[in-house]
Amino acid sequence: MVFDEMVVAVNIMDEIRVETSRMEKSISAVPGLAVILFGDSKSSKAYEVPGLMVGIKTLVVRLAEDSSEEEVLKYVSNFNDDPCVHGILVQSPLPSHMDDKNILNAVSVEKDVDGFHPLNIGLLAMRGREPFCVPRIPKGCIELLHRYNFEIKGKRAVVIGRSNIFGVPAALLLQREDATVTIIHSRTKNPEEITRQADIIISAVGQPNMVRGTWIKPGAVVINVGTSVVKDPSAPYGFRMVGDICYEEVFKVASAITPVSGGASLLMAKAMLLSNTLTSAKRIHNFM
Amino acid sequence: MVFDEMVVAVNIMDEIRVETSRMEKSISAVPGLAVILFGDSKSSKAYEVPGLMVGIKTLVVRLAEDSSEEEVLKYVSNFNDDPCVHGILVQSPLPSHMDDKNILNAVSVEKDVDGFHPLNIGLLAMRGREPFCVPRIPKGCIELLHRYNFEIKGKRAVVIGRSNIFGVPAALLLQREDATVTIIHSRTKNPEEITRQADIIISAVGQPNMVRGTWIKPGAVVINVGTSVVKDPSAPYGFRMVGDICYEEVFKVASAITPVSGGASLLMAKAMLLSNTLTSAKRIHNFM
Repeated sequence: MVFDEMVVAVNIMDEIRVETSRMEKSISAVPGLAVILFGDSKSSKAYEVPGLMVGIKTLVVRLAEDSSEEEVLKYVSNFNDDPCVHGILVQSPLPSHMDDKNILNAVSVEKDVDGFHPLNIGLLAMRGREPFCVPRIPKGCIELLHRYNFEIKGKRAVVIGRSNIFGVPAALLLQREDATVTIIHSRTKNPEEITRQADIIISAVGQPNMVRGTWIKPGAVVINVGTSVVKDPSAPYGFRMVGDICYEEVFKVASAITPVSGGASLLMAKAMLLSNTLTSAKRIHNFM
Repeated sequence: MVFDEMVVAVNIMDEIRVETSRMEKSISAVPGLAVILFGDSKSSKAYEVPGLMVGIKTLVVRLAEDSSEEEVLKYVSNFNDDPCVHGILVQSPLPSHMDDKNILNAVSVEKDVDGFHPLNIGLLAMRGREPFCVPRIPKGCIELLHRYNFEIKGKRAVVIGRSNIFGVPAALLLQREDATVTIIHSRTKNPEEITRQADIIISAVGQPNMVRGTWIKPGAVVINVGTSVVKDPSAPYGFRMVGDICYEEVFKVASAITPVSGGASLLMAKAMLLSNTLTSAKRIHNFM
């Protein structure tokens, strides 16, 4: 079985639209998302259009690549205070002259729709505590498992990669769902011995085709997050996207696998961002 | 080999004394620890004496078991503001009518020598970030491994138990040291299959003799944290302390093991508390 992230993302966005409309009718408020972008690399439409589709007001601020940290912090501070803004997203990675710690710490923990604030990560790690927001890409992976009715509780799960933005929160989320979780990283010896025991494998390292068919227990569920662009003279533009998971091999062994399709994964990440913004708006307005 | 926690704890306390004395000579300041206890169950001497031994000024406040949360919060707030206090410890578990979230969140994250504040847990979980303090019992376990020169990097480590105060921070610490970590918990199926692969096993669940000799890979390093009191008519007082680790069996298989000795472990925990207080005082006074 191949996961269809596109369908799941569209379903989630439909559900968000229903909620934002209910919210607007009941309390005359709509969720607001503020996005800070740098330079010209990213299109603001990529945020505005999905927001528009689901009834979330999106405000995109575009700063020059060489803006000062102070300028960014001023925008963050204004958005923190703005009652119409319920979620704040700062483009990541930041321009290299900025310290991402300073920027991430400045975003109000209640509006941290990226879920990268250390307080949110700490609350995610602790039993009996609830983070304000959960990082959206790991959250999307769990959502995918839920919507396809794959049980997580009691399963052996392996997360490949231990980044702050994916691996660590993904492991913490799986643990909250009562999986037995192991994080594999660059210092792990014989990672294939560990993946072969896993019922659920999620990889986010950016190593093309690292996870081979022989690494997988028959019937495991495999989610690819890390993608790389590799040269391929036979491909239309001379390159193609390759995942950490060797799709051709793993497809034959796994019971379920995500395709390597940048677009659908991006839409899923966008859907989770909008979902986090909605959750944040509902909490701030105390709207159930 | 049997770990001697008593010797390690004494060494650590000696090192703390050297540092507090250097600090006093250089900047005329000594580290200060404030402890809030409830009822009569715990002796204030248990905190004051070790503090005195290493040159840390310990202030113990004893509140009635039925004190209000507001009273506790008032003391916490005063200690937060007191420049002579660098570490604040609130007895745990709290009296049952208090909400530990409110109390833990109130302790200044810089003076949180228990390391239980969610921000400290989050910083512990994140690569490239540093918590102000690390929970002392897990920190003591890592210190034990270091002082006996057991390498952690690249090893398979298993933590049994996923409590906020031990299992989660222990796993995060092992991961920071580049181990490949799995947390085992009540929902884990066939935990012995996982422990048998581990080079390092740390258990903190309070299940007497749960981890048997057959659970252990020959040569593994085993640290017991969870202890239970069980009836034993043949023992002097009719009961004895038993660890999660079945000492008699595991001793024969492991290359190193901690004895089940409440006293030495408590002294180790105390040494780490004082070490956290020293670290906190040095940071607050900017003393290197």
